[in-house]
Order: sequence, then C-alpha cells, then structure tokens
Amino acid sequence: MLGRSGIREGLCLVNAMHITASVFINDDEKGLHSDYKKWLEKLAPHEPVSQYLHNRTMEDNADAHMKRQLMGREVVVAVTEGALDFGPWEQIFYGEFDGRRKKRVLVKIIGD
Amino acid sequence: MLGRSGIREGLCLVNAMHITASVFINDDEKGLHSDYKKWLEKLAPHEPVSQYLHNRTMEDNADAHMKRQLMGREVVVAVTEGALDFGPWEQIFYGEFDGRRKKRVLVKIIGD
Amino acid sequence: MLGRSGIREGLCLVNAMHITASVFINDDEKGLHSDYKKWLEKLAPHEPVSQYLHNRTMEDNADAHMKRQLMGREVVVAVTEGALDFGPWEQIFYGEFDGRRKKRVLVKIIGD
Repeated sequence: MLGRSGIREGLCLVNAMHITASVFINDDEKGLHSDYKKWLEKLAPHEPVSQYLHNRTMEDNADAHMKRQLMGREVVVAVTEGALDFGPWEQIFYGEFDGRRKKRVLVKIIGD
Repeated sequence: MLGRSGIREGLCLVNAMHITASVFINDDEKGLHSDYKKWLEKLAPHEPVSQYLHNRTMEDNADAHMKRQLMGREVVVAVTEGALDFGPWEQIFYGEFDGRRKKRVLVKIIGD
Repeated sequence: MLGRSGIREGLCLVNAMHITASVFINDDEKGLHSDYKKWLEKLAPHEPVSQYLHNRTMEDNADAHMKRQLMGREVVVAVTEGALDFGPWEQIFYGEFDGRRKKRVLVKIIGD
C-alpha cells in the first residue's frame, strides 16, 4: 500500500476502526502477546460483567473498551525513503478485545 | 473547522493542551463514561494524596497526570474526501481528570 | 531540527525506536516522574519475573513492554508558525523501562 502511494517522505497513520480494538506497535513474540492478554484481564477484568454500567445496554464488553484504551487506538509511523521507518523490533499489531467484530483497520499515508 | 480548511485528504490531530486532560476516541455512551471514571480511580487513586511526591508541590492532582497517560493525550484521525474518516461508533471526547483547568483543545489539519 | 526543516505549518512525530521505551508529554517535575515510576511498577510489576511467558526467551523485561504501552510509544505535536505548538506545561520526555538499551528517538516533521 505504501509502495502504491508513491510517497517517499511522510507519515503513515494506522488505526483500529472499532472501539473495542487496538492498533499498537510492539514485539512479534507469542509469549509476550499471551502476557498482554493476561495482564489486560487483570487491569480491566471481564467478570463480573455487572460491575460496568455499559453492560446494561445489551452489551457485555465494557472491559474491552478499557483494554483498548490501555493499548491505544492508533500508531503513527514515519515514512522515510519510501519505507516505514521502524526501530529494530517494531511491528504493527491489531488487538481485538471483544472478539465479535470484523477486523477493520484504516491506513492513511500522507507526504511527498 | 475541517470544512474551512478546504483539506480533502490528510490527517487531523486533536490534542489536549493540559497535562491532566485527555483527548480520546471511544463510544458516546454515558454508562461507559461513568465506568471509565470509576476504573481510572481504581488504577490511579486520588486518595491518599500523600502517596504522590508531586503533591508536595502545592498540587493534589498527581493522580490526574496518571489518568491522562492511561487515556492518552491525542488522537490522529484520517481526513478522506473532506470528512473525518471514522469507524461506525468512533467519537472524539475530552476528558478532564483534575477539573480545575479551562478546557482547551488543539486541532491541526494538514493535507491537500 | 524544526528550524532546519524550514517547516512553518505541519505535524511533528516523535517516537521511541525501542519497544520497551516510551515518548510521552507531561510535566517537567521530578516528583511526578518518581511517582510515574512507582505507579508503573504497581500496574506492571517486574517481579516475579516468572509470571511472564516472555521472560522464558532469555529476557526478563516483559514488564517493560507493558509499562511502555501504558505510557505510549509516540507523540504527535502541531507545528504552528515554525514552532512546536505546546500547551503551557507540555514537555516531551523519553521513558526507558528496561534500562539496557541505547536511547534512540525518531523525529519526523512534515508540512509546508
């Protein structure tokens, strides 16, 4: 997509389009991703669902709205010489904390 | 403001100008916003104010600086065909965790 | 760097290049920075290192990956009339939660 844009120097925004999901940058290591899941459950537990007012609206995913705030909605990455300008271990991930949504991500690239 | 800018394709930055406040994107649902408030108080409690060194500087709002980090300072939203390119439930909110500041938000739109 | 870029109106991205580090905006107050350190240790404790699967990969820094998510990877700051358009107390900081990496930050400025 970056190639097709023809942009050499600029910024690339990648964001989740769902409010119970996150786009974040971290390590591509399975153990770490399991650790995140367990850790987010500790900081924003799903159960008991009755602890959240939001869950009175025929939803039971209030915790997913919290988890997404902790992990963040979006990343902005520099584009340098036509490529994403990543540090050595940086990778972009999509995290879905509700699990019942279609996964949709927005990518916008601007620059010259 | 986006209309006045005349920008059709670009990025829109919206950020809190105060360091005890947040601009974030999530659901426009009152129950959820109450849930956030309660949840942030659990993760970064105001009391006892003596637990924070920052509160020795004639402030008692150290917790508000933590809450703002959890919710984030800013959002960057794509501008597509002259409109903010939101997912189905995305709305921008301003969260003030201190409550004693004037609410000021910066909006910057760049593109073509 | 902003001066050299010659950009008068635009956006400035500043991000950590390491996934156990953060670039964030908050107050330049030493007590607050100590408070952050203690608070992050409470929300994402280093010990016991065995609680994290990631630490089976010859690392013991899983907690640093969590702390970085709480504080955020990047900030995007408006550039207005050739200067960073900050609120009254806004300052950019680099937070390193592992402590064994070289500190490298990426700065990208786009605009006119």
